[in-house]
Amino acid sequence: MSAQTPASESDRTTLATVRSIVGLRAAVAAWRREGLSVGLVPTMGALHAGHLALIRRSRADCARTVASLFVNPTQFNDPKDLKAYPRDEAADAALFAAEGTDLLFAPPADEVYPAGFATQVRVTSLGDCLCGATRPGHMEGVATVVAKLLNQVRPDVAYFGEKDFQQLQIIRRMATDLDLDVTIAGVATVREPDGLALSSRNFLLTPEQREIAPALHRALSAAAAELAGGASAGPAMEAARAAILEAGFRAIDYLDLRAEADLAALEGPDRPARLFAAAWLGDVRLIDNEPVESGG
Amino acid sequence: MSAQTPASESDRTTLATVRSIVGLRAAVAAWRREGLSVGLVPTMGALHAGHLALIRRSRADCARTVASLFVNPTQFNDPKDLKAYPRDEAADAALFAAEGTDLLFAPPADEVYPAGFATQVRVTSLGDCLCGATRPGHMEGVATVVAKLLNQVRPDVAYFGEKDFQQLQIIRRMATDLDLDVTIAGVATVREPDGLALSSRNFLLTPEQREIAPALHRALSAAAAELAGGASAGPAMEAARAAILEAGFRAIDYLDLRAEADLAALEGPDRPARLFAAAWLGDVRLIDNEPVESGG
Repeated sequence: MSAQTPASESDRTTLATVRSIVGLRAAVAAWRREGLSVGLVPTMGALHAGHLALIRRSRADCARTVASLFVNPTQFNDPKDLKAYPRDEAADAALFAAEGTDLLFAPPADEVYPAGFATQVRVTSLGDCLCGATRPGHMEGVATVVAKLLNQVRPDVAYFGEKDFQQLQIIRRMATDLDLDVTIAGVATVREPDGLALSSRNFLLTPEQREIAPALHRALSAAAAELAGGASAGPAMEAARAAILEAGFRAIDYLDLRAEADLAALEGPDRPARLFAAAWLGDVRLIDNEPVESGG
Repeated sequence: MSAQTPASESDRTTLATVRSIVGLRAAVAAWRREGLSVGLVPTMGALHAGHLALIRRSRADCARTVASLFVNPTQFNDPKDLKAYPRDEAADAALFAAEGTDLLFAPPADEVYPAGFATQVRVTSLGDCLCGATRPGHMEGVATVVAKLLNQVRPDVAYFGEKDFQQLQIIRRMATDLDLDVTIAGVATVREPDGLALSSRNFLLTPEQREIAPALHRALSAAAAELAGGASAGPAMEAARAAILEAGFRAIDYLDLRAEADLAALEGPDRPARLFAAAWLGDVRLIDNEPVESGG
């Protein structure tokens, strides 16, 4: 572990890596003694440009950036999904290094969940709708592992993508409620030129499915524009559902209009609102969300 | 707030008091800049010699001691119990001050639970038996408020009485599981000369009930001695139950032999074990526990 001497050049290709919480804390403590600020970018690996945008934001804001790489088993409600989740630490480490990440925290599962582990963090209401309703235990798994990670690293700022907007809001609520002394920063979704939100799950799509996938965002954008123009939510969202299924998605888990702040279900965009959707392309579940301008 | 210049004489009678998390953090941060260690003694007030033993332990271990006083509504499953809970901040502050406490944190409820609060911390298994089974929501309330408090103060050590042994073990588990960088210290139960465990609820007993109350500890001690001597658990615990009811307790919520480490139910003291009991004297619910020597 050479975390005591982090390189800051953005062109290096190796990256100081720690696998224990003790090693992580020692590295962060050394930075703290120098008075340096610390940003954290939690990931499950399978990096894409969305993750790298988080690293860039952290590097712009903070003197040092820690990335974590941990495929958290407790947030997978489906063992098949956990098994299929793409993993390539060497490739991920090279991408983190190229972006100038200062330290990679890549713990084994038993470092995160030792024998006897028994604690769950749950955010009610925010965590009970959308993916919380369709993926039992998922949001508890996320809230718990992020609470741990925030306590392990104790960063000044932690960065999360708006693509997982419900997760972002749950983490904000959890960090506030548990008095974690950290800023939770949301970073705008990065998209392919055809509008598809970047996601590690996109790697699992067949070429045919990849062609169909942008229909999800297209439908959300069209409905968001209609709602912003004053259309009623019912017909606009029905049209979006039909368009998604017609494009070739197998099923829709949800397509909802909800308030940004508390994810309350809305009849119209009378306060800051987003359309949220989760839909299945074969065995791959994609999610996306789109802000809706209020008024009309 | 004069927390920056804490008095250390044990005979002072006023005490620096903060009511906001911001004020608390500023006071603790000032100590940290001086390199001072910090102990925390969480209380719900209604102080007795058991609490003061926690303060003394903290003062022996740590350079500065914070006491908190907050009657946490979320851990009361019964609104009547919350309403009846004894409250006298001025008297408590004088007792804390006399023991040399450096800072009192006594927040109002909306500082701890602002509008929109939605997070619960739950310790499974450990939290599902004993008082967790008989007081729904109680242990979640405790685990959540203590997680918050540990994050608010960030002490080196936090002190809890062994009288609430299940609570102590839940807090240990929670602090370990959530990677809170703190030592949880258990302090032996303080008892009246007749064996009654000190408890804020003792203040609610009538003189007649106060006469009866030591029967709880007497029965646990007798059963623990029998078990240590090799007696079977069944008859020894039946005798304890009968003695408690015969003495004048109205009902027994539980009387269990359990492992200290994980509170698993035991048939005999084949590993470090305790007898745990909760019983009702009129409308007052008393709890106690007694270690059982293994072997026999």
